[in-house]
Amino acid sequence: MKIYGDSNSGNCQKVKWVSDHLSLPYAWIEVDTMKGGSRTPEFLKLNGAGQVPLVVLDDGRPLAQSNAIIRYLARDSSLIPQSPYLAAKMDEWLFWEQYSHEPYIAVCRFQMVYLKKSLGDLDTDKVKRGYAALALMEHQLHATAFLVGNSMTLADVSLLAYTRVAHEGGFHLDGYASVRRWIGACEKHLKL
Amino acid sequence: MKIYGDSNSGNCQKVKWVSDHLSLPYAWIEVDTMKGGSRTPEFLKLNGAGQVPLVVLDDGRPLAQSNAIIRYLARDSSLIPQSPYLAAKMDEWLFWEQYSHEPYIAVCRFQMVYLKKSLGDLDTDKVKRGYAALALMEHQLHATAFLVGNSMTLADVSLLAYTRVAHEGGFHLDGYASVRRWIGACEKHLKL
Repeated sequence: MKIYGDSNSGNCQKVKWVSDHLSLPYAWIEVDTMKGGSRTPEFLKLNGAGQVPLVVLDDGRPLAQSNAIIRYLARDSSLIPQSPYLAAKMDEWLFWEQYSHEPYIAVCRFQMVYLKKSLGDLDTDKVKRGYAALALMEHQLHATAFLVGNSMTLADVSLLAYTRVAHEGGFHLDGYASVRRWIGACEKHLKL
Repeated sequence: MKIYGDSNSGNCQKVKWVSDHLSLPYAWIEVDTMKGGSRTPEFLKLNGAGQVPLVVLDDGRPLAQSNAIIRYLARDSSLIPQSPYLAAKMDEWLFWEQYSHEPYIAVCRFQMVYLKKSLGDLDTDKVKRGYAALALMEHQLHATAFLVGNSMTLADVSLLAYTRVAHEGGFHLDGYASVRRWIGACEKHLKL
């Protein structure tokens, strides 16, 4: 398997972490998205959306979207609950991550780290929604060790990616003790 | 099963369509999101994200996020491919829908239909990205009858929701013949 990814992208790191955790062999192909590496004609043939991460299986078939990729790679592993309902709760977090967490926390981080914006230049609505996302995670992680009960699932892998670097987007985790405890537990579990 | 939904929301319609298609019994509970119906203390206990659709199973367990719900309801049905790779391609479209389609096409529609904005008031970047999403669908649907090969899957159900009402958000489908053909085929299949 080939993984096309940008090492600084949380979405790409999810794929690396799951592959490493499950000892899946892969070749990492670094793509510099800031220099248009995901917009070349060759890349667009594999993923018309022009985004990393992208994996190409050994038989040449491509697969995109970080959460779809990790769901595929981790099928039949303990990272996906066997109970259909708990697997669905995991999916609930995966879709929520892409709609209500990543567009705020990852985007603020992108603007500060890559576009060199200052905290005061960030869209206040994005900041507010980012903190709302952290508050929802805190609420869950105050009640359970991981997002879906007491063992780690792909929901944790996915949410970890940008939550552990939220400070790079100007987010303070001081008031989110359960989130901080959970970050440590996930990092230990994934040997990061 | 109870479905808490707003009849005008494409995300909620997805859940209704899948339930009807699979003849799953349910009680529909209308929630007026414009009047804060998804932000009451009772509702927030079931879904801390304060969003519809939400289903509550017969044993009382809640499940949120439209694409997670339909993935759960349609498990073991022909709406999810048996092949792990094709199921993953379906997931790729589901995640793409929430990140690269809904935030542009559904949001423009929301602003025009509910907030009474005119076409000229829409964020030009959102409009541009909405058309980019339609172009990617057109590219796929020019090659295959449905988004994942030649039979309908949840990818089609999910993308249908806001694509069939894209015109309400100011999007013209004139140049998207395959998308228009596909909308008709999906509507026929789902008896809409």
